[in-house]
Amino acid sequence: MTAGIFELARAEIDALLEEQVVGRIGCHAGGMTYVVAVIYAYDGDCVYAHTIVGQKVEMMRANPAVCFEVDEYEDGSWRSAIVQGRYEELEGADSEHALALLAARFAGRGRSGERPRGGGRPSVSFRIRIDEVTGRAVRR
Amino acid sequence: MTAGIFELARAEIDALLEEQVVGRIGCHAGGMTYVVAVIYAYDGDCVYAHTIVGQKVEMMRANPAVCFEVDEYEDGSWRSAIVQGRYEELEGADSEHALALLAARFAGRGRSGERPRGGGRPSVSFRIRIDEVTGRAVRR
Repeated sequence: MTAGIFELARAEIDALLEEQVVGRIGCHAGGMTYVVAVIYAYDGDCVYAHTIVGQKVEMMRANPAVCFEVDEYEDGSWRSAIVQGRYEELEGADSEHALALLAARFAGRGRSGERPRGGGRPSVSFRIRIDEVTGRAVRR
Repeated sequence: MTAGIFELARAEIDALLEEQVVGRIGCHAGGMTYVVAVIYAYDGDCVYAHTIVGQKVEMMRANPAVCFEVDEYEDGSWRSAIVQGRYEELEGADSEHALALLAARFAGRGRSGERPRGGGRPSVSFRIRIDEVTGRAVRR
């Protein structure tokens, strides 16, 4: 393969988003930028996650314009995808749909990969609806 | 080990920052939040990287208050560290120091892990000076 930096096509970005297990949400509120890892599922339009209500949820409620990033690094070569999107909190059937996607994604990966144990603290399902996504590969 | 969510002590955070190879910078400028992966070196006070001048550098120049995140996910258990810090662009001896740290960090990991190939585009060394760092482990 030729060395250099390459833009990924949407199909390659989709493949990366489907393969990866952990992504990072970037959010900004109250003058602070915060990056936090989440395990997620992807359906082609949105990224889905389930989390304990805490700092990231409070920040995304305050400012739903968020970034979502995945990357893969191996032997000096990279692929990454960067999403600009919108935080949407899920309830009822939408929340059940998200939990089902996460359960399917993490089936066989050990115990209940999708549900963090929060010691009884409130949790929430949400999606990030993709407005724009770019992907890049660096080959060495 | 007991299941649950645990705060990491500073020594555990330092160990994670020393072990990991790829971290993610979160920056915010012009109403947009952006998360981007970088390979980095860590010396206990700052995270060092070298990159092509592009969107992330322009955003960090506009707003140097940035976030830096690393994580490790394995079999449903996690460790992560989240830094709040300040972008500082490096020149001269400071830049050489950063490049030497990166070269030492990536020695033996293949070809010139620290220097992206940008087809002749300008590149820059920078550090993120840590103001605050928190770490967390989730064990299942």
